[in-house]
Amino acid sequence: MSLIGQREGIEAGRLDAFVDGAFAFTLTLLLIGGSSIPDSTDKLLLMLGGIPAFAVCFFHIAFFWHGHVRWRRRCHEATTTGRWLSLLLVFFAMIFVYPLHMVFAGLFNGLSAGRLPSDFHLVGGAADMRTLFACYGLAYACMAGTLTALFGHAARRAGRAGFDTLGARREMRVWSVPAVIGLASALVALLLPLSAPGWMWALPGFMYALLFLIGPVVSRFNRRYGQAA
Amino acid sequence: MSLIGQREGIEAGRLDAFVDGAFAFTLTLLLIGGSSIPDSTDKLLLMLGGIPAFAVCFFHIAFFWHGHVRWRRRCHEATTTGRWLSLLLVFFAMIFVYPLHMVFAGLFNGLSAGRLPSDFHLVGGAADMRTLFACYGLAYACMAGTLTALFGHAARRAGRAGFDTLGARREMRVWSVPAVIGLASALVALLLPLSAPGWMWALPGFMYALLFLIGPVVSRFNRRYGQAA
Amino acid sequence: MSLIGQREGIEAGRLDAFVDGAFAFTLTLLLIGGSSIPDSTDKLLLMLGGIPAFAVCFFHIAFFWHGHVRWRRRCHEATTTGRWLSLLLVFFAMIFVYPLHMVFAGLFNGLSAGRLPSDFHLVGGAADMRTLFACYGLAYACMAGTLTALFGHAARRAGRAGFDTLGARREMRVWSVPAVIGLASALVALLLPLSAPGWMWALPGFMYALLFLIGPVVSRFNRRYGQAA
Amino acid sequence: MSLIGQREGIEAGRLDAFVDGAFAFTLTLLLIGGSSIPDSTDKLLLMLGGIPAFAVCFFHIAFFWHGHVRWRRRCHEATTTGRWLSLLLVFFAMIFVYPLHMVFAGLFNGLSAGRLPSDFHLVGGAADMRTLFACYGLAYACMAGTLTALFGHAARRAGRAGFDTLGARREMRVWSVPAVIGLASALVALLLPLSAPGWMWALPGFMYALLFLIGPVVSRFNRRYGQAA
Repeated sequence: MSLIGQREGIEAGRLDAFVDGAFAFTLTLLLIGGSSIPDSTDKLLLMLGGIPAFAVCFFHIAFFWHGHVRWRRRCHEATTTGRWLSLLLVFFAMIFVYPLHMVFAGLFNGLSAGRLPSDFHLVGGAADMRTLFACYGLAYACMAGTLTALFGHAARRAGRAGFDTLGARREMRVWSVPAVIGLASALVALLLPLSAPGWMWALPGFMYALLFLIGPVVSRFNRRYGQAA
Repeated sequence: MSLIGQREGIEAGRLDAFVDGAFAFTLTLLLIGGSSIPDSTDKLLLMLGGIPAFAVCFFHIAFFWHGHVRWRRRCHEATTTGRWLSLLLVFFAMIFVYPLHMVFAGLFNGLSAGRLPSDFHLVGGAADMRTLFACYGLAYACMAGTLTALFGHAARRAGRAGFDTLGARREMRVWSVPAVIGLASALVALLLPLSAPGWMWALPGFMYALLFLIGPVVSRFNRRYGQAA
Repeated sequence: MSLIGQREGIEAGRLDAFVDGAFAFTLTLLLIGGSSIPDSTDKLLLMLGGIPAFAVCFFHIAFFWHGHVRWRRRCHEATTTGRWLSLLLVFFAMIFVYPLHMVFAGLFNGLSAGRLPSDFHLVGGAADMRTLFACYGLAYACMAGTLTALFGHAARRAGRAGFDTLGARREMRVWSVPAVIGLASALVALLLPLSAPGWMWALPGFMYALLFLIGPVVSRFNRRYGQAA
Repeated sequence: MSLIGQREGIEAGRLDAFVDGAFAFTLTLLLIGGSSIPDSTDKLLLMLGGIPAFAVCFFHIAFFWHGHVRWRRRCHEATTTGRWLSLLLVFFAMIFVYPLHMVFAGLFNGLSAGRLPSDFHLVGGAADMRTLFACYGLAYACMAGTLTALFGHAARRAGRAGFDTLGARREMRVWSVPAVIGLASALVALLLPLSAPGWMWALPGFMYALLFLIGPVVSRFNRRYGQAA
C-alpha cells in the first residue's frame, strides 16, 4: 500500500471509530434514559417489560449503523463529502432515538393492553398521533436519505475512477425506498384531519409495511442492469 | 492480503469496535446507575462497600466479552450470522447487567449481615427470590447460549472451508454448560412452590456451582476427539 | 514497515482512539445533559425545538475533532508533545461544551422570540452577556490555540526530518485565526463597560464573523510560499 | 507477519480498545457526576471554578492510562496474565476516580479559601481526613501496583523469549515507587491518632512529594544495569 493510501486509511478508520462510538452511545441513551435503575424486583419486572420496545429500537439503530458499514465497503477513501454525510447520519441517529423509542414503547403498551409498561402514554389522542408519526417519519426519512446520498456519492466516485458503479447504485436504490416511505408517512400524518376516525390514524404506521417493496425494486434493478455485485 | 480480505477485515474490525464499546458502556452503567456521586466521606465509604458486588459484576461482564474475543479468533470473516449473533450478545449484555447487579448486591448485603450496603433489598421474601433467580438464570442462559451459537457458526464455517473444526467445537461445548445451567436454575426457581422452606431458595443459586463441570466436559471432549487446539 | 514504525503506529492509534472516544462522549454530554427524556409529545416537541442549537454545537465539536484528524495526517509518530497537546485538546473540549451550548441555545431562543426553547435564559442582562462571551471566547481560543500548537509541533518535526513543512505551517496559520479572534472577543466582552448600550453587546458575537479572514490568510500564505500541499 | 502473529495482534488490539474506552468513560464520570448542567451564568461560573480540580484528575487518569500504553510497547502479545491485569487496572481506575476527585476538589476549595467551589466539604475533621487519605492512598497503590505487575510480567516474558528485559524492569522500578508511597500514605493516615494536631493530617498528603524519588531510583537502576533502553 502506498503512503498516501495508508494515510487515507487512517483517516477513514478514525471516521469509522467516531461513527461506531456514537452509534453505541445512542443505544446507551435508550437504556440510561428509559427509567431509573431498578432497586426492587417489582421495578425489575417493570424494566423487563420494556424489553420488546428496547429490542426493536436496538435492531433499528443497528440496521442504520450496518448501512454505514456497507457504505464503507463501497467507498474506502476519506472524502470530504463522505465525512460530512457520515457526521450527518450520526446527528440524525442521536435525534431519531427518542421518537423511535416513543413509537415502539407506545405500540407495545397498546398491543399488550397495558401489560407491557411504557413511560409514555398517548394522552392527547389524534393530535399526539400526528406529532409522533410526523417526527418519526421525518427522522426515518432523514436517516435513510443520508444513506442514499452516501451511496450516491460512492457511485459517483467509483464512476469517475472507472470502476463498476452497479453495487453502489443498487444500494442507493434500496435506501431510497425507506426514505420515500418515511416522508410519505409523515405527510399523511400531517395532512389527515384531526377529526378523522381512529382507525385512520393507523394508516401512517401501516405505510411502513411498504418496506417489502425493497425486494421488487432490487429485482427490477437487477433485471435492467444485470446481476453483477 | 487480497483486497477482498482487507475489506472483510475492516468490516469485522468495525463489528468488534461496536461490541467492545458497548461492553465498556455496560460497565459504566453499573457505576453511573449504582448511586449518586459521593459528596461526603460517609457516602464514599458507602460506595466503597459496594465494591465487592461491582467487582463480581465487572468480571462477569469481562468474562462474556472475552468469550466474544475468543470467538473472533475462530472466525475472522465478516458474516451475516456472526454479525446478528454479536449484536444479540450486546443486546443481552445490556439487559443482563441489572439482574446481575441485583443478585450480587443482595448476596454481599446478606453475607455481610448488612455491613456491605445495597440499594436493593429482598423485601418480598420467596416471591422476590423467584423473580430474581428466574431473570438472572434466563439472562445468563441467553448470553451463554448466544456464545454457543457463535462458536457453532464458526465450526460450521471452518468445516465448510475444510479447516480444523476441533477448537471451535470445544469452545461450543464449554459455553453450552453455563447455558444449560442458567436455564435449569431459572426453571427450578420458577417451579419451586412459594411455600418451600427458606433454605430451598438457595438451591437455584448453588446450581451455578455446577460450572465446575466445564472441566470434565472439556476433558471428555479431548479424550474423544484428540488434544489438538 | 519496520518493527519500530509498527510500534509507533500502535501508540499513535491508541491516542487517536482515546481522542475519538472522548470527542464522541462530549457530543453525548450535550444530549444527556440537555434535558430529561421526553415522555409526552409536548416534551418531544420541546426537545425537537432544541435541534438547531444541538446542530450548531454538534458541528462545532466535529470541526475541532476534524482538526485533530488533519493534524494526524501531518504527524504520524507518537511524540510526547503531540500526546500532551492532544490530551489538552480533549480537556478543553470537555469544558468548552457547556458555554458552547449556552451561547447557541440562548441565541436561537432569542432569534426565534422564544419559540425555540432553551433551558438557559439570559436573566442578568449585560453581566450575563459578559460572562458568557468571555467564557466562550476563552474556551474557543484555547481549543484553536492547542490546534495551532499541534500543527506548529508537526511543522518543527517535519523540518527537522528534512520533509516539506509547508502543509503543516499553512494549517498552523489557519488555526491561529480563530485563536486570535476568540481571545479578542473575550477581551472585548471583559472590557465593555456594563453600562454600554444593549446593541454593543452583540459586538463580541459578531467578531466571530471575522473567521472569513481564514480565506485571505491562506491566499496570502500561498502567494508567499507557493501552492504545494 | 504470520497468521498467528496477526491474530495475536487483533486480540491485543481489542483489549487496548476496551482499556482506552473505559479510561475515556472514567473521565466522563468526572464530568457527568460533578454537578448538574449549568442553566445560568452563575452556575456556569460555579462549574468553571471546578476546572482546577478537574484538570488535576484528568491528567492523573491520563497518566495511568499512558502507563498502560507504555506497557503495550514492552508486551505486544495477547497473554492471559496481561489481560487480567489490564482489566484489573480498568477496575481500579473506575473506583479511584471518586476519592481522587474528592481529594483535589477539597484541596482547591481549601487553598482558595472557598473561592473555588466544591460539592464536597470536609465536615468531620480528622475522621474525614483519615477516611479520605486512606481510600486515596489504597486506590493509588492498587493502580500503580497493577502497572508494576504488568511490567514485571512483560519483563518475565521478554526474558523467557531471550529478549532484553532492561526496559521493562526499569519501568517496573518506576511504578513501584508510587505503589509504595500510596500504601505508606494510607498506613500513616490509618495509624495517626484522631487526636493528632491538625497540621499532622497534612503528612499523608505531603508524602506524595516523595514521588520525586522516581528520578534517583531510575538513575541508580541505570548506573547498575546500563543505559540501554
